Amino acid sequence: MSGFVCFISGGPGDPELLTLKAAARLAAADVVLYDDLASGAILDHARKDARLVSVGKRAGRPSARQEHISRLLIDYAATGAKVVRLKSGDAGIFGRLEEEIEALNAAGVGYEIIPGVTAACAAAASAGLPLTRRLTARRVQFITGADTRGELPDDLNWSALADPHALTAVYMGKRTFPALAARLIAAGLSPETPALLAEAIGHADQRFVRTTIAELAEQLSHESVTATAVILFGALAGAAP
Amino acid sequence: MSGFVCFISGGPGDPELLTLKAAARLAAADVVLYDDLASGAILDHARKDARLVSVGKRAGRPSARQEHISRLLIDYAATGAKVVRLKSGDAGIFGRLEEEIEALNAAGVGYEIIPGVTAACAAAASAGLPLTRRLTARRVQFITGADTRGELPDDLNWSALADPHALTAVYMGKRTFPALAARLIAAGLSPETPALLAEAIGHADQRFVRTTIAELAEQLSHESVTATAVILFGALAGAAP
Repeated sequence: MSGFVCFISGGPGDPELLTLKAAARLAAADVVLYDDLASGAILDHARKDARLVSVGKRAGRPSARQEHISRLLIDYAATGAKVVRLKSGDAGIFGRLEEEIEALNAAGVGYEIIPGVTAACAAAASAGLPLTRRLTARRVQFITGADTRGELPDDLNWSALADPHALTAVYMGKRTFPALAARLIAAGLSPETPALLAEAIGHADQRFVRTTIAELAEQLSHESVTATAVILFGALAGAAP
Repeated sequence: MSGFVCFISGGPGDPELLTLKAAARLAAADVVLYDDLASGAILDHARKDARLVSVGKRAGRPSARQEHISRLLIDYAATGAKVVRLKSGDAGIFGRLEEEIEALNAAGVGYEIIPGVTAACAAAASAGLPLTRRLTARRVQFITGADTRGELPDDLNWSALADPHALTAVYMGKRTFPALAARLIAAGLSPETPALLAEAIGHADQRFVRTTIAELAEQLSHESVTATAVILFGALAGAAP
């Protein structure tokens, strides 16, 4: 082994939703590589003299970016520095963690993963809702609404998603939701299925839209996408808060 | 409104996986109602003079117990005390949160929910694995393996669960896993599908079993169930750590 990297889950954005373990690892880090989404107040937990390296989203060439991040992790770890890789939400959910892990494994760099609060849990909690319900909503599922091109993945399991007894959370799915809703309705899900859009959870400009999948699709087809959002749909998304 | 209750997510058991916000709410609480699963070191965050009330699992009469918990929450909140309801994992996932929320709503008691680290995220992180993978594992789903009688629910969506491209986490599913695996294999999922049993995550006696769904079913059919566990299955559960 040559060096060590600690993957930290930064949670949904509210710096108070960091775990105690993540805060401790951040405070001990010599180098912190962070995404734009996981920045701001969370980085206040790092030492004043820690090196903070933004590796956040930029336009174009996503795979080149990913290789560059992995290279930086390996190179910083090789110096013997305490390296933290800060990801937003839970690092293991839609964070492309596997690509960085594989690069570290190939380079013989050790690592640990600190789990955290994923956006679906934060969205439901902020809206005052559970994600499961005894007897009637026993399956909760998370999907991403955007493939590497930013389009709706065309190989999703439509029957699993059109199940009226499941609660589904769509990550990065605001722009493609009109297309997703059309596929769900075609697969038999009622257009009246409750939907909840949770935007900028835990931030000052937090916003919730409670509606139906058909109406949310209509609304989002006219809206430019700025803030990050999670969309929950299923009977449970319409429960009284 | 008459009083207020704060639902706190205690995380998977490791007291360091509590969020900063949950730790702060615990430290401010006058009364803490907790389940057995979410006890131990997490309660060290409460004030020395806080009233700690165990409402954990007991044998028999589950609905009477649930009504009793709701009654206690309402009664303590009515006194004006700062009431915390501590649940294990993420409070919104398989925690029967909806029943307590409905009782508070009916009684006019306000509440907030602090999200946390759910067991599936903690299990994957402890095993060094992500829960999703770009291109090949775009859907992650959580189910419970036990209905209120402790049996495998008979109305699960078998085709959604038998999808080889999903990663599934089964909560409270150790005892019923042999029956679940038989249904999955009958629904077309390969018996060789990788499975990971994660037991007592974050505790001194933490244990991982990496195998296949068929072999895990065989193994668990001979094992008495003691520690709490999460079972992950799907191609991703077999990735090298």
